[in-house]
Amino acid sequence: MASQTDGADAKSLTAYGEARSTLQGNPLSSDEVRKMNEYFRASMYLCLGMLYLRENPLLREPLKVEHLKARLLGHWGSDAGQSFTWTHMNRLIKKYDLDTLFISGPGHGAPGIISQSYLEGVYSEVYPDMCEDAEGMQKFFKQFSFPGGIGSHATPETPGSIHEGGELGYSISHAFGTVFDHPNLITLTMVGDGESETGPLATSWHSTKFLNPCVDGAVLPVLHLNGYKINNPTILARISHDELTNLFLGYGWQPYYVEGSDFDSMHQAMATTLEHCVLEIKEYQKQARSSKKAFRPRWPMIILRTPKGWTAPREIDGKFLEGFWRAHQIPITDVRTNPEHLKILENWMKAYKQEKLFDKNGKLIPELRELAPTGNSRMSANPVGNGGILRKPLIMSDFRDYCLKDIVPGQTVKGGMANMATFLRDIIARNMTNFRLFGPDETESNKLGEVYKAGKKVWMADYFDEDKDGGNLSPEGRVMEILSEHTCEGWLEGYILSGRHGLLNSYEPFIHIIDSMVNQHCKWIEKCLEVEWRAKVASLNILITATVWRQDHNGFTHQDPGFLDVVANKSPQVVRIYLPPDGNTLLSVMDHCLRSVNYVNVVVADKQEHIQFLGMDEAIRHCTKGLGIWDWASNDQGQEPDVVMASCGDVSTHEALAATALLREYLPDLKVRFVNVVDLFRLMPSTYHPHGMPDKQWKSIFTENKPIVFNFHSYPFLIHRLTYKRPGQHHLHVRGYREKGNIDTPFELAVRNGTDRYSLAIDAIDLLPSLGNTVSGVREKLVNARLAGKEEAYNNGLDPEYIRNWRWPYPKNS
Amino acid sequence: MASQTDGADAKSLTAYGEARSTLQGNPLSSDEVRKMNEYFRASMYLCLGMLYLRENPLLREPLKVEHLKARLLGHWGSDAGQSFTWTHMNRLIKKYDLDTLFISGPGHGAPGIISQSYLEGVYSEVYPDMCEDAEGMQKFFKQFSFPGGIGSHATPETPGSIHEGGELGYSISHAFGTVFDHPNLITLTMVGDGESETGPLATSWHSTKFLNPCVDGAVLPVLHLNGYKINNPTILARISHDELTNLFLGYGWQPYYVEGSDFDSMHQAMATTLEHCVLEIKEYQKQARSSKKAFRPRWPMIILRTPKGWTAPREIDGKFLEGFWRAHQIPITDVRTNPEHLKILENWMKAYKQEKLFDKNGKLIPELRELAPTGNSRMSANPVGNGGILRKPLIMSDFRDYCLKDIVPGQTVKGGMANMATFLRDIIARNMTNFRLFGPDETESNKLGEVYKAGKKVWMADYFDEDKDGGNLSPEGRVMEILSEHTCEGWLEGYILSGRHGLLNSYEPFIHIIDSMVNQHCKWIEKCLEVEWRAKVASLNILITATVWRQDHNGFTHQDPGFLDVVANKSPQVVRIYLPPDGNTLLSVMDHCLRSVNYVNVVVADKQEHIQFLGMDEAIRHCTKGLGIWDWASNDQGQEPDVVMASCGDVSTHEALAATALLREYLPDLKVRFVNVVDLFRLMPSTYHPHGMPDKQWKSIFTENKPIVFNFHSYPFLIHRLTYKRPGQHHLHVRGYREKGNIDTPFELAVRNGTDRYSLAIDAIDLLPSLGNTVSGVREKLVNARLAGKEEAYNNGLDPEYIRNWRWPYPKNS
Repeated sequence: MASQTDGADAKSLTAYGEARSTLQGNPLSSDEVRKMNEYFRASMYLCLGMLYLRENPLLREPLKVEHLKARLLGHWGSDAGQSFTWTHMNRLIKKYDLDTLFISGPGHGAPGIISQSYLEGVYSEVYPDMCEDAEGMQKFFKQFSFPGGIGSHATPETPGSIHEGGELGYSISHAFGTVFDHPNLITLTMVGDGESETGPLATSWHSTKFLNPCVDGAVLPVLHLNGYKINNPTILARISHDELTNLFLGYGWQPYYVEGSDFDSMHQAMATTLEHCVLEIKEYQKQARSSKKAFRPRWPMIILRTPKGWTAPREIDGKFLEGFWRAHQIPITDVRTNPEHLKILENWMKAYKQEKLFDKNGKLIPELRELAPTGNSRMSANPVGNGGILRKPLIMSDFRDYCLKDIVPGQTVKGGMANMATFLRDIIARNMTNFRLFGPDETESNKLGEVYKAGKKVWMADYFDEDKDGGNLSPEGRVMEILSEHTCEGWLEGYILSGRHGLLNSYEPFIHIIDSMVNQHCKWIEKCLEVEWRAKVASLNILITATVWRQDHNGFTHQDPGFLDVVANKSPQVVRIYLPPDGNTLLSVMDHCLRSVNYVNVVVADKQEHIQFLGMDEAIRHCTKGLGIWDWASNDQGQEPDVVMASCGDVSTHEALAATALLREYLPDLKVRFVNVVDLFRLMPSTYHPHGMPDKQWKSIFTENKPIVFNFHSYPFLIHRLTYKRPGQHHLHVRGYREKGNIDTPFELAVRNGTDRYSLAIDAIDLLPSLGNTVSGVREKLVNARLAGKEEAYNNGLDPEYIRNWRWPYPKNS
Repeated sequence: MASQTDGADAKSLTAYGEARSTLQGNPLSSDEVRKMNEYFRASMYLCLGMLYLRENPLLREPLKVEHLKARLLGHWGSDAGQSFTWTHMNRLIKKYDLDTLFISGPGHGAPGIISQSYLEGVYSEVYPDMCEDAEGMQKFFKQFSFPGGIGSHATPETPGSIHEGGELGYSISHAFGTVFDHPNLITLTMVGDGESETGPLATSWHSTKFLNPCVDGAVLPVLHLNGYKINNPTILARISHDELTNLFLGYGWQPYYVEGSDFDSMHQAMATTLEHCVLEIKEYQKQARSSKKAFRPRWPMIILRTPKGWTAPREIDGKFLEGFWRAHQIPITDVRTNPEHLKILENWMKAYKQEKLFDKNGKLIPELRELAPTGNSRMSANPVGNGGILRKPLIMSDFRDYCLKDIVPGQTVKGGMANMATFLRDIIARNMTNFRLFGPDETESNKLGEVYKAGKKVWMADYFDEDKDGGNLSPEGRVMEILSEHTCEGWLEGYILSGRHGLLNSYEPFIHIIDSMVNQHCKWIEKCLEVEWRAKVASLNILITATVWRQDHNGFTHQDPGFLDVVANKSPQVVRIYLPPDGNTLLSVMDHCLRSVNYVNVVVADKQEHIQFLGMDEAIRHCTKGLGIWDWASNDQGQEPDVVMASCGDVSTHEALAATALLREYLPDLKVRFVNVVDLFRLMPSTYHPHGMPDKQWKSIFTENKPIVFNFHSYPFLIHRLTYKRPGQHHLHVRGYREKGNIDTPFELAVRNGTDRYSLAIDAIDLLPSLGNTVSGVREKLVNARLAGKEEAYNNGLDPEYIRNWRWPYPKNS
């Protein structure tokens, strides 16, 4: 029988006592230990000050209720571990002149890192009113978790932060994003044992299979076994050493333990271990770079076990505080009403001996200040933490050179996505350390395989001989593919937030997997607009393909165009949505997105070959306007039309155009205006979205009283919400995906959802009662044609040839 | 320097040759090997038939193009591994009379398991037209990936499937959901090495820390190292044996390898290994159950490495097929146009010797049929795979007994969520093997801690002494908490799909993490409505709390009420959304949801203490109607009002009511009607949603020409899209969260988004131009009051007392 874990070593897993560590050593003199501990205490004092005080910052008066904030907010639990780690990294930055960024996975311990920023002077440089004296400290304390101030996570206002840690799970993928193509950077990443339970974090440890020590920097994770989440123990703190060690060896890391609560021995253990890890990283890099042979070492990591809320009282009134989940947020909650607890708080704060750490003006004493690095070597001042200042525009070829040529509108069939891939290929080639393409194993499937000619897929796991057969794998690749949308998105976010550019390509149905990550990124970008010192970063570009209308054969689970609804809820300052109808508009849109900054751009375009509509010049004009009347497809000759046929999305445009052709064939006197929308937010009022348009312009395109049949790529409701205030909105009849799917042919799927040509033409007729009974015959023909179109599907599994190979029957400008 | 992996053992990782396995043995006679291999071949033959054939199912004529489907669709890559595993489990089910469910993680290999269902006769029992003869087989082949037929994943039409595998990553969490409280069940779970890269799958291996061998069954994972995804190798197939073994030991599993491609030795190895695992599971269960002492063994799992597309030709035209990513979908794509390839296909199919496996009628020969179990022991007939037939209604106390008493509308303040927890507590107590509560470490924070009195938190990881201090941990708990929304949701889905009941509670801001899972579940449920033999399962109940309007202090990242938009896109047959305004309505709604079947119910209610509005009887009446006029808050006395003040959501109702009070105070002649909405879909037309209402009823409540100020919990656009066709829709003025957040007080956050009482009252005035200039003084007072309300926030970090402690100033029915 296999062995079992029965908790026998549970006792040894508690975080108390003398340091227990994998590596032994006493690299610090006793004076260094004293000073580092004082620095750590100064940080802890500041953390408590942030949580509690609005006056009396240096406790020069006895602590009274009126010195306290009225509402106590913020997180204490992980502050000590983070601050401890930061303090120790400072020593090595100075000793080895390291380029280091700090990522705080458990961002809810923001006081830990904000206090460090204040101690090393960056906070006061960035926010001069919070200077290094008693008055500045008072303001520094008061603003924390206070209206008009800063939050208790590592929000955009935090110097050196590119990772808020409000929603958990992305610290490791963000960290890897920062070090790709930053060969000298070490990103020290605190990982919470709580966030370690999330799916995105659990798989992101595998990022080592995509990191090349020749061209990339290194991530040094410190897994913080804090022991508790809000109200529960954490899994990783409650499994045996053997299991934990095995887990990380299995992920490809070499874990080194530092565990305990005793200050002196913990400082020695952490100093020994952190230094060992840094030197190991340097050694691997040297080995790979000098030999020019990339390999995947077992990268070092630290498992740091300290009590949750370390340095707090262990018990209050017989209930555990330090080392228990009660230390997660405000450690003592009733200090405003319980004088004894207020006294406990005062004694606790004074035990850090603040009067010896800060001088009479309230400034950190020089002996301690010397422990921190200076200038941009300070982690909270690392330029990577404000990546926009490092951003260089992409070197881009003229997208017009990649255009699909000889387009006969509505007749030429080409693959717009495969063509756009040639544009992407050259962007990769011309920006070999400044741009990467990300995707969950779908790049080839999405017809973007051409990019591999400029940069293969990064692969640092094992190679087989058969990989030579079109594997496109390489340690030096530029395309990042892991079957985890979370990891792709996290890498991309980290990459652009640290000053570079990128693009995520993904199947439409599964992009909802990262709804929440995109939400969080939108919020980060929006908040950055309010932080003066934050430089603009490249836009987050998401290319969605394998779209709903060509997922007929994969069925219902592969049909969900609703990501646009999630994005449309985000700030108009940040989000942009484009649905180019064909290949040349796709090129124009992609060029625009890749040049833009501080947006989240979502581009929806199918990957298959489709009918093309616009030559390059028309495409540019159309994209510049964002929407417009297609004269060549309209027969209203500049007059008021009888009906407007509108479309948004490639397949939707194809069917709407075919519907227009049917109407013109059967009802030649009917004046049909054809409108196409590329830039979705053009539909909104200009008062709401910067891309919106005024009602006057709306009326000139859509009229104010004529029926509009609008064929939309996604759920029809989105159009209704964007246009709800428009004149004539009640004449707007929107078709789109209405959650009807099965195993279908493309035409059958469209019929099921009312987005096929016949249904659209019938809609137009039904919206024009003035046509009277004369059209009943036409209507019947359309209904019969729709039925006939479905029949071949059930017989042969194919759409009829006359639907598959339909072309616009009118020469241009007829 | 630490060791490194350099791919030195990469050669040994290929999937070819004699079996290599952790456990050695030859438990099968040569005759058994022959028969099992023939059964396996029969399955493979059927798989190819499904992918390719519409005629000539038994290849009794030479294969011609006209026998092929016109459009070739479906997945081949993982079929063989899944079918091989199924075949071997059949032996053990018969030998040990096991109760076994099969979950197909890589659901894209549906032919593998559908073929097994056909071979064991279940498919023909369920779908009699696809009977066990040549004609039935022809229909069985043709329907696959064919319009009107079934998909190429394990869709709801698949007997024995509760897991489609269309979107990847949930096989293990679903599997654990099926075995909780099913002590005799073993859920054999094929896990794809592709899906293993997803975040949700990567963390779900930790589910062992929540499984109690005394009361729960077991999950037996078979990690299928197929080697490739669509176009890439998989990570887990390209790391060393050492790393892979360590990884799973670290996750708490004991991995046993079975690797190779040689049939005879692979059958022996799989038979040995699978039997060992089953016996090991039985032994652990016996040990735990006989001692009545739950423990966490190192549960067994199998790592099965076979070539991708096993049994296909290794190379065609010098390009790899078997054992390469080209075998992922249709293995030979050009058989309709390339006669040589058609011949290769024919020879390949015939090599399975179908004429010896199926009799002259086309039925599997008896010698092979004997290998399968019979009746409900067949995995595709396991009742758990159609869990609705096992579902027993919850035993529920009368929710009225838990009501909040002595409610003075608008004046009483109580905690509705904490009160509802007492109702939940007793549901748990009365349904100890039929209901579980799930949540990502937020149950206590969400004021539901009362439930621990009936059932503690399941915890099978290590215990510390300090857990006695309110830890509420137990091996026998009923509450499932892991900091992974994905895992919680996956467990819950598995639990209800296998016939039980449950509830997920989660913070509102982070529920977007499972958008995609909920989408997929909605699709599953909707499709089940079309599958006659599927019995209805308990609804998926999601309770969302810690809502946006009380996330003022946590800031912008914690504010996102947009999950409702995602849900509202799903089928009206499936989704229901409730926003009870107070404690008694919450009780009534929860009672309704927990009794319902086949829905996805989303309930949004804040967890804090709030003003109450309705006594129990009124609450029931109000919830039954779904929305209604609150006479006690209105002063239109049954006449046409001047303005309608409407609300949906608890805090939104509170502010709308306060706005009504302001209007009545300042403009006593104004007739204000107060409307509250509990059931969001009541707002839709009855033609669209079963809960919708006709326009006539709409008009009787909202009028058709009076201004409506609607204060909504979520993004205001959702109301616009639900009501876009309503008479008087242009008079509807909706306020809600408009993505404006910071560190705020609750009132300040409301002001920022225009949902505070003063803004709402101002809106009403602005919508009533008939009031003329006489109200400019009133308007100014309101504007000043709004400004004053914000001031205290900036001074003290608190809302003013007169806002915090506001009460409805009018006695009932004034």
